[in-house]
Amino acid sequence: MRSPLLSIPFIFLLLFVPLSFASKARHFKWEVGYVFWSPDCLENVMIGINGKFPGPTIRAKAGDTIVIELKNSLPTEGVVIHWHGIRQIGTPWADGTASISQCAINPEETFTYRFKVDKAGTYFYHGHYGMQRAAGLYGSLIVDVADGEQEPFHYDSDLTLLLSDWYHKNIYAQMVGLSSKPFRWIGEPQTLLINGRGQYDCSLAAHVIHGSTTCKTNTSQCAPTVLRLHPNKTYRLRIASTTSLSSLNLAIGKHKMMVVEADGNYVEPFLVDDMDIYSGESYSVLVTTDQDPSSNYWLTVGVRGRLPKTPPALAIINYLPNSPSKLPKIAPPITPTWNDYAHSKSFTYKILARQGTLRPPVNSDRQIALLNTQNKIDGYIKWSINNISLALPATPYLGSMKYRLKNAFDAKKPPEQFAANYDVMRPPINPNSTQGSNAYILDFNRTYDVILQNANALADNVSEIHPWHLHGHDFWVLGYGDGRFTNKDVSKFNLKNPPLRNTVVIFPYGWTAIRFVADNPGAWAFHCHIEPHLHMGMGVILAEGVELVGKIPNEALACGMTSKMLMNNHP
Amino acid sequence: MRSPLLSIPFIFLLLFVPLSFASKARHFKWEVGYVFWSPDCLENVMIGINGKFPGPTIRAKAGDTIVIELKNSLPTEGVVIHWHGIRQIGTPWADGTASISQCAINPEETFTYRFKVDKAGTYFYHGHYGMQRAAGLYGSLIVDVADGEQEPFHYDSDLTLLLSDWYHKNIYAQMVGLSSKPFRWIGEPQTLLINGRGQYDCSLAAHVIHGSTTCKTNTSQCAPTVLRLHPNKTYRLRIASTTSLSSLNLAIGKHKMMVVEADGNYVEPFLVDDMDIYSGESYSVLVTTDQDPSSNYWLTVGVRGRLPKTPPALAIINYLPNSPSKLPKIAPPITPTWNDYAHSKSFTYKILARQGTLRPPVNSDRQIALLNTQNKIDGYIKWSINNISLALPATPYLGSMKYRLKNAFDAKKPPEQFAANYDVMRPPINPNSTQGSNAYILDFNRTYDVILQNANALADNVSEIHPWHLHGHDFWVLGYGDGRFTNKDVSKFNLKNPPLRNTVVIFPYGWTAIRFVADNPGAWAFHCHIEPHLHMGMGVILAEGVELVGKIPNEALACGMTSKMLMNNHP
Repeated sequence: MRSPLLSIPFIFLLLFVPLSFASKARHFKWEVGYVFWSPDCLENVMIGINGKFPGPTIRAKAGDTIVIELKNSLPTEGVVIHWHGIRQIGTPWADGTASISQCAINPEETFTYRFKVDKAGTYFYHGHYGMQRAAGLYGSLIVDVADGEQEPFHYDSDLTLLLSDWYHKNIYAQMVGLSSKPFRWIGEPQTLLINGRGQYDCSLAAHVIHGSTTCKTNTSQCAPTVLRLHPNKTYRLRIASTTSLSSLNLAIGKHKMMVVEADGNYVEPFLVDDMDIYSGESYSVLVTTDQDPSSNYWLTVGVRGRLPKTPPALAIINYLPNSPSKLPKIAPPITPTWNDYAHSKSFTYKILARQGTLRPPVNSDRQIALLNTQNKIDGYIKWSINNISLALPATPYLGSMKYRLKNAFDAKKPPEQFAANYDVMRPPINPNSTQGSNAYILDFNRTYDVILQNANALADNVSEIHPWHLHGHDFWVLGYGDGRFTNKDVSKFNLKNPPLRNTVVIFPYGWTAIRFVADNPGAWAFHCHIEPHLHMGMGVILAEGVELVGKIPNEALACGMTSKMLMNNHP
Repeated sequence: MRSPLLSIPFIFLLLFVPLSFASKARHFKWEVGYVFWSPDCLENVMIGINGKFPGPTIRAKAGDTIVIELKNSLPTEGVVIHWHGIRQIGTPWADGTASISQCAINPEETFTYRFKVDKAGTYFYHGHYGMQRAAGLYGSLIVDVADGEQEPFHYDSDLTLLLSDWYHKNIYAQMVGLSSKPFRWIGEPQTLLINGRGQYDCSLAAHVIHGSTTCKTNTSQCAPTVLRLHPNKTYRLRIASTTSLSSLNLAIGKHKMMVVEADGNYVEPFLVDDMDIYSGESYSVLVTTDQDPSSNYWLTVGVRGRLPKTPPALAIINYLPNSPSKLPKIAPPITPTWNDYAHSKSFTYKILARQGTLRPPVNSDRQIALLNTQNKIDGYIKWSINNISLALPATPYLGSMKYRLKNAFDAKKPPEQFAANYDVMRPPINPNSTQGSNAYILDFNRTYDVILQNANALADNVSEIHPWHLHGHDFWVLGYGDGRFTNKDVSKFNLKNPPLRNTVVIFPYGWTAIRFVADNPGAWAFHCHIEPHLHMGMGVILAEGVELVGKIPNEALACGMTSKMLMNNHP
């Protein structure tokens, strides 16, 4: 029956709705392939998009639909792209996580990602298969407020800084090393990159500070990033970190920064001289160009949390109309000592929700404690969560759960607590870990607290930083603490203005408590965003309401048991 | 209904059939993955099987069924394995060619190859996806005569020599270089390998001849191959070449070789001092240990057809009970000058079918001429056949043909002849080439002649050697000639004792004529076996009787349009 509403006059009406108030579909055609690139002035093979590294920046408005036809032109590798920070409400199959939300896209095939960017903010995208992110498969995704809406702070213009790190050794060697017995650690990255540019063995800092090394940036691909700013304006710097390994700190000579956004959520503004940023996080900071306009300034990005063998990266804050090549009068700021955790905690603890942010439910329905340990399993070094090191299955969870396939992943319920007598301050004793693909099945619409508990690694007196990233949700960060979490800590939870985030750090030997509502039907990764750590099993799968998920496109399930089921069950 | 034959006495009977007279199923469990390996004493990442390089040797008897459960443990790459020289009669989906006979096996998935080895001979297997062969994915496959059968020549024992070449630059860099504009040629391999072992920058030849370089073979992975032989015996050396680029010549100090087999077919025995072997070929030679038994001897493998920047490889012919480390008294044989094509042709022309070999049909039903040219297509350097450079589609031909899917590959019939006035002696003028996935559809059971016509490459006065390998068939080699083939050459075809082969060379500026019967239902690759040449499009697809192909396992079709069809057409 033809709907009476679809009359010709009505169609005309639709056509005349002003476009500026309508949300828009933004179409992109991307091709993923290897490229020769010199991100740090040394040529290497990277994974690029449309022949370039980093990938194109997506710019959209809240409410828009993003449509990306992604062609895989890698000769033998599958590929997926994860839209980091986008919750994929109603489109869990577009989350871009191989083995979780979809099958990897085969070479020569095209998969269309179609999803809504419902919330303004600073996001990015990256590969989520093997260690392809570390090969350079990433780019920025910026969502402006919808037309007619306003940001809750003023700025004249914005600029994007996508931070990353870069290894000269290719990811295939990295992956086999991490999976080898004896273990071969990949070491520290050679170079930090700002918007995909760095200078290996020729740091601008060395040039400026020691006045000795000549800096040859012989290809435009590694020319330092220049931020061209007018004096006496306020700029919003949109900063995201997609590093493989490094935790970072960023500072600008002579300029303070006002933090206003974290992971696509507004925070109560606070002023800092330098800021930490962990892999998977994004921030907006406001910077006012109120310094001596006759000079340029340095922006420094340095390493935190690991003895930094990677030199800092530099960008130039270019006060117009100075030439960008005019060297700043003052030396680049020195980022804090790598192991000054008090400094890091001080920054992190300042991040609180902006007034008006949605508050968490007062109570949680269930608490899950996740103990992060480093373990030896059959002599292989792995990271484990509650003694299970995540080994992804051939069939995406989303499909095998939706179609209730047996044996697609380890069916046993993973543990929700860990031994009461586990000593987080000591190396794991009798590490009874296994590899597994078990998933946490959450009750739909219930409120969950997750306690991320850090611990001592295999070596004495070592506990590392891990930034945990949750797919499909924002969560409230209720609190942090040192040592082992106890139920007494619950009373100290911040329920007043906890920040909403999608990534949160656990400090060495510490815990972090988060709360979220399991209200987004799908199967979601929750994992350490350090690429080699995830490769070594540091993650879990959370799933909720999969029975409510709409029709998953068959193209997302053309592998493993879902493919067999779809092909064979209908003869 | 229970069959009356399956009575208990009958089952007992079956159990007592002597196993030695029954053809046997031989089961293997293989896992493909990256390995750290030092094939030429320098460590690199290779693709290995069960943690080793080269892959395990398969040894079977004619009539046996080989069953290989192949698990892909590469983190992000698909994989297939081609069983080179096995015709896959009745099992075209087991030919192991990605995009042709099957979909690549996804990471974490297992595909079972099951096929009959119907004919005794010297074979090998290798990856057939991207350039994975060049990453080390290969091994030997030896088929002995069935029990009760005898080889038509005598030998006391046999030994296998699998020859290959090795680049230090990884295949991802190789592939992107070959597909770049401007083109980046991969250059010559660093090292030749014998049974997966070579010595980079420390050749044993240099050690012996110049007496200067010290040869450090500091890992057992690159220790030179030693053939331990007893004096006064006759050995069958089974020699195959799976080089990526190099054409080779093999010689043994003081020993002549009697060639008796080529590509799994007996040839009329002939005696040589040295033998050429092109990528994709295999030979058996008989060597009698009739020299001074107090000495060891060198076996040399050198490069042909290209200015050799790759030093020769050496193996030691160890006359027992001498120590294998006793250096031979005489220097390693020097293989012929790289461009002594007269020498090469003389060897190749000697290869004739052994008496009793099946003769070709006297007439062919159709002649297809395939002009081999190097072309620029949109500025990219490609190899083309009759002006089409092969670009493999996402969907395997076997599946899309069997299920008559539209638009899975270029439907237009590819040309069967080339311009009458094409000057094969000059660089291509007005190269009107395109990339395409067109296939040659052959009439089932008809006899085809294919004229492979070589020509000048893009540069003046350059024409290269190309060894062409046909899947699914042996063919008769009817003749070779210099310059352009004309129909008058047909009268000179050798119909009396043309050798049966699966690989045949075309010499610079020359032609080679082959004949075969299109009697094996399937879709088959026919291509230059030089890995970078195939990657640059140097191949065609031949298909015959696909409508007669039995049920293709769905697992072989879980990609591209066949996957969509199988998933969607049956809702």
